[in-house]
Amino acid sequence: MALRIGVVGCGRIGKLHINNLINSVPGVEVVAAADPMLDKSGAREWLADRKITNVSTDFQDVVNNPDVDAVFVCSSTDTHCDIALAAVQAGKHVFCEKPIDYDVAKIKNLLAAVAEKGVKFQVGFNRRFDHNHKAVADAVKSGAIGDPHIVIVSSRDPEPPPASYVAVSGGIFYDMMIHDFDMVRYVTGSEAVEISAVGSCLVNPNLQEESGIPDVDTAVVTMKMANGCIAVINNSRQAVYGYDQRVEAFGSKGMATDGNDLVNNTTVITVDGARSEKPLWFFLERYNQAFIEQVKCFVDSVVNDKPVVVGAVDGLRPVLMAQAATESCRNGGVYVKVAE
Amino acid sequence: MALRIGVVGCGRIGKLHINNLINSVPGVEVVAAADPMLDKSGAREWLADRKITNVSTDFQDVVNNPDVDAVFVCSSTDTHCDIALAAVQAGKHVFCEKPIDYDVAKIKNLLAAVAEKGVKFQVGFNRRFDHNHKAVADAVKSGAIGDPHIVIVSSRDPEPPPASYVAVSGGIFYDMMIHDFDMVRYVTGSEAVEISAVGSCLVNPNLQEESGIPDVDTAVVTMKMANGCIAVINNSRQAVYGYDQRVEAFGSKGMATDGNDLVNNTTVITVDGARSEKPLWFFLERYNQAFIEQVKCFVDSVVNDKPVVVGAVDGLRPVLMAQAATESCRNGGVYVKVAE
Amino acid sequence: MALRIGVVGCGRIGKLHINNLINSVPGVEVVAAADPMLDKSGAREWLADRKITNVSTDFQDVVNNPDVDAVFVCSSTDTHCDIALAAVQAGKHVFCEKPIDYDVAKIKNLLAAVAEKGVKFQVGFNRRFDHNHKAVADAVKSGAIGDPHIVIVSSRDPEPPPASYVAVSGGIFYDMMIHDFDMVRYVTGSEAVEISAVGSCLVNPNLQEESGIPDVDTAVVTMKMANGCIAVINNSRQAVYGYDQRVEAFGSKGMATDGNDLVNNTTVITVDGARSEKPLWFFLERYNQAFIEQVKCFVDSVVNDKPVVVGAVDGLRPVLMAQAATESCRNGGVYVKVAE
Amino acid sequence: MALRIGVVGCGRIGKLHINNLINSVPGVEVVAAADPMLDKSGAREWLADRKITNVSTDFQDVVNNPDVDAVFVCSSTDTHCDIALAAVQAGKHVFCEKPIDYDVAKIKNLLAAVAEKGVKFQVGFNRRFDHNHKAVADAVKSGAIGDPHIVIVSSRDPEPPPASYVAVSGGIFYDMMIHDFDMVRYVTGSEAVEISAVGSCLVNPNLQEESGIPDVDTAVVTMKMANGCIAVINNSRQAVYGYDQRVEAFGSKGMATDGNDLVNNTTVITVDGARSEKPLWFFLERYNQAFIEQVKCFVDSVVNDKPVVVGAVDGLRPVLMAQAATESCRNGGVYVKVAE
Repeated sequence: MALRIGVVGCGRIGKLHINNLINSVPGVEVVAAADPMLDKSGAREWLADRKITNVSTDFQDVVNNPDVDAVFVCSSTDTHCDIALAAVQAGKHVFCEKPIDYDVAKIKNLLAAVAEKGVKFQVGFNRRFDHNHKAVADAVKSGAIGDPHIVIVSSRDPEPPPASYVAVSGGIFYDMMIHDFDMVRYVTGSEAVEISAVGSCLVNPNLQEESGIPDVDTAVVTMKMANGCIAVINNSRQAVYGYDQRVEAFGSKGMATDGNDLVNNTTVITVDGARSEKPLWFFLERYNQAFIEQVKCFVDSVVNDKPVVVGAVDGLRPVLMAQAATESCRNGGVYVKVAE
Repeated sequence: MALRIGVVGCGRIGKLHINNLINSVPGVEVVAAADPMLDKSGAREWLADRKITNVSTDFQDVVNNPDVDAVFVCSSTDTHCDIALAAVQAGKHVFCEKPIDYDVAKIKNLLAAVAEKGVKFQVGFNRRFDHNHKAVADAVKSGAIGDPHIVIVSSRDPEPPPASYVAVSGGIFYDMMIHDFDMVRYVTGSEAVEISAVGSCLVNPNLQEESGIPDVDTAVVTMKMANGCIAVINNSRQAVYGYDQRVEAFGSKGMATDGNDLVNNTTVITVDGARSEKPLWFFLERYNQAFIEQVKCFVDSVVNDKPVVVGAVDGLRPVLMAQAATESCRNGGVYVKVAE
Repeated sequence: MALRIGVVGCGRIGKLHINNLINSVPGVEVVAAADPMLDKSGAREWLADRKITNVSTDFQDVVNNPDVDAVFVCSSTDTHCDIALAAVQAGKHVFCEKPIDYDVAKIKNLLAAVAEKGVKFQVGFNRRFDHNHKAVADAVKSGAIGDPHIVIVSSRDPEPPPASYVAVSGGIFYDMMIHDFDMVRYVTGSEAVEISAVGSCLVNPNLQEESGIPDVDTAVVTMKMANGCIAVINNSRQAVYGYDQRVEAFGSKGMATDGNDLVNNTTVITVDGARSEKPLWFFLERYNQAFIEQVKCFVDSVVNDKPVVVGAVDGLRPVLMAQAATESCRNGGVYVKVAE
Repeated sequence: MALRIGVVGCGRIGKLHINNLINSVPGVEVVAAADPMLDKSGAREWLADRKITNVSTDFQDVVNNPDVDAVFVCSSTDTHCDIALAAVQAGKHVFCEKPIDYDVAKIKNLLAAVAEKGVKFQVGFNRRFDHNHKAVADAVKSGAIGDPHIVIVSSRDPEPPPASYVAVSGGIFYDMMIHDFDMVRYVTGSEAVEISAVGSCLVNPNLQEESGIPDVDTAVVTMKMANGCIAVINNSRQAVYGYDQRVEAFGSKGMATDGNDLVNNTTVITVDGARSEKPLWFFLERYNQAFIEQVKCFVDSVVNDKPVVVGAVDGLRPVLMAQAATESCRNGGVYVKVAE
């Protein structure tokens, strides 16, 4: 019997998940959906086109629906934790978009509820399911590169968000680097102990005035990991050539490194040199398949009662890292211990 | 209003098209399907799961269905031409899997019918829609490499078909190289004038005994094109490392060349050297998106009354080339003129 | 004690060898040199700068010099065979630039003399010593790719020679493809049985009028090798992007393929795409180290009495292949048997 | 007339320069040499083989030789500054191996002398002349990548030096990263303002005990540059796969990045994946040509009275950076201002 899924939040990411659930994930059925803007946004019609008619403007209708086995939390970031908690308390399995929350106490509270209820809880760190990054992490796990000594995550967006978005984003370390903190944990298989962050406003020198927060758009973070490995993340809000997402793991027995997926693998060479393609434009292109793979993995965890691959604690740790990085960056790059 | 499509033939390729039409091609609806093995093969149930209930074991029911705007011919190769002709005569637009037929007279007859009826007719040479090959062809068309002088198509399957399949395949030039003949025409923008073919049974030395036909499994074909360009195709029935599909166009101003899409872009380097991934395994993986793109293009031709990109004559020419290559190969590689 | 070398011919290639012998080849001494243009060309002074003062306008003075252990034949092509023969008959070891001659009878006569005198004789097929091509050949030899099925040699010069040079060159198959014929033998480890050649004047449509010989500037040759492998060579007199020299060996267990050495390994990526470098310009750049390696190998053969790696018969076979290719090309691409 | 060169120090690096001066640098003559171990080391004989007979155990004999135009300082590191100063004061042009010294006061004293005497003074930061790194720096200079935002230098040796060497090396920041500090200045075109360093003993956990100094073998340094760019260097004393030397410059208009030069460009692909080569083993292989290019550049500066490309101040700055990094690393990674 199919796993019956209810989706809360039918914006861009909710629709992405719904389409993937319908088209690309076997063994599931989307049976209910909720979105406060159901009618204003046209979501009701969009859902009806996909035969999803059990819809509501109130997430409680999904969370409490006895026909729902698992809830996808795809609502606005500030509501993730509350909705997820409600779903967990209703005994539902939960797939929750990242970040769970920026409030550590709330996340810990949620963790406790997950443990108590014994449901499956997965956080949407989809990049772990990217074919390239996964192969780097697998190389580390397999021992192919020995003990990891230096890990470098390069992660750059193709275009900066508007300052109005930045104003409510929590800053680059919470909003953007959160994925890379998770990547460092994933690839090193270890936890960050201390973090130093340095940043500048190089993409938009007026970012702080325009956003009203002391944020940066270019940042480099260095971490000492519990296993001795040193990890470095570099972020830019604007790589004009496209989404630049690369991971390098250097260790005692070798190195694993990945490249971007390109628009195509064709090269044209003339007297002016060789011209080849740019990376895929942004996350919808690059992580398209990863979005699907993570959900397949979640479904597998629920249906076959396996441990989730990216659990609630994996939602907590990157927030603690973002916290430390933010503090370091605002204090001249001093090393800041990552809270437990 | 959606373009209403009827599918004839619900085997592997028919199912592929139906799934793509449902999930990935906007503006279409699959309204009918036919397959002689509807019940024995489980196709009826498979179609019902996709809400396709107007089904029949007789292709005439699709071809003559007044609610069908366009017919997809996905039946066994020997029936392509008759079904396509029936559909054309019924005034339907047709998307026909390759090859149309091996009988030149029958194809010409079909061409005449298409012209008379003024319907859209597209042949399933999906590789023209591959992102890599298309970029090579575009480089030639744009003049970026000047006049093409030498074109090399390397096309190798990951594993050989059984001898029983080869026995009824028409041989490597009709069955496998037919795609590459189309690629040469596509990339050079010119027609083959003369063809020389040489081949051997290197993958399976007993191929001829086992298949009962004088076929080969490794072949190299050289062509003089009308525009002066020399084209070379090399085929092998077995590249153990996966589907090897590459095109190189060398010209007066430069070269365009593509590579395979790989399983991932990760490299692991140790004292033993650098290890990276193999090509995607076979055509379903490599040309997955190309299958979709070609259908989108067909739909666009029909809906917006544009010329088809791969027309009926594009189905004819490769057959004439396969004919010449087969003759050359059986006569010691002599140059054979390609019939008009 | 150092191997004492006399050099006949002090043009571009002779000077190249002399500089390499002095700077890069341990255990040798250049003790004598001859060149008919010794004074007119400034060679006498050039040699004196390198402390080579035993010089003559007559090659016999080198060949008969009792202080000379080995003779390097670097004179004009038409004199190679006579000078080499004289040196062999004088009991000298010989390193002879390619081609030995175009007259098969003369080469065979030389082979007999080499055998009779028991001296070392190496032909200057330097590409066998290129790090890239050698790694391809080694992969075949080691069994890493299994039995070779298809070998493709792409070999394109950056700019065409003047028609006046072509007029006396013997044509593209003798002058340019001779290296590639050797490469096919080297990589496949087998001999060509039959050859088909097709060519056009695409770089210079007036080549035949201007040169006065029925030559071509773009050619593709297909060969059936004794071991069943099919080999293809493609040549162009002009690759505007630089010297394009690549070898691909496809076999039952895999493929070995090489790339060009580039001016540098740097890539610049912008909104316009990724730009990387062209191949090294021509043979002096690409095969610089190979010129040295082949001579080290020759010296090793002489000093340690090992078999030469590229012997006199290796000078003969490519000439027989060029002969067959020339005949095929002038007769519409028919397959021509390669003479013994 | 040739530039007359005297070489002080005939160990490995002195011999390297002498061979290059003789074989690969036009317009120079090595007229004198000095080495305290002239006879014990066999250097006298080695020099005589190269016709260098004006030799001495006392560097003063070279420095004060009126036939010497320029002095190459290739002696042990602790003597660089004194010998260079003596040569400058004697009015000689100087090419000085890196580092000039670790004592900032002594370097500044030397700088003053160079300025006073008006001689040419070049420091041996050869990596600026590497074809790959130079192309990255040129891309920045040309504006191709816009303003540099993030620069990443990865620099890893193939094998660690013995602990006894480390004991007198000054530590990884002076001994190894000094080159990378120069690279950051070269590529960014800017000066480091603040530096944070973190390091561990991951290659040899007993390094500090064995060497007797508080050194590390794995280090990551982050810098804020005067132009706003953030630069990161990562060093390891042991990359088992060979010398890993890469530079990436990311900016407002794009990115320039280079790769290692490999042993060869051949790939072998089998069912096990694609195998390609490792980087060239160490600096003699990778920077072979760079050693020559820097000397050609020095000779050009002297002969044609052009500014040197890597002057005395370029010898000072990396020492100040190493100083700051060492301090930061020993104090938990705090940001340390780089002294003027």
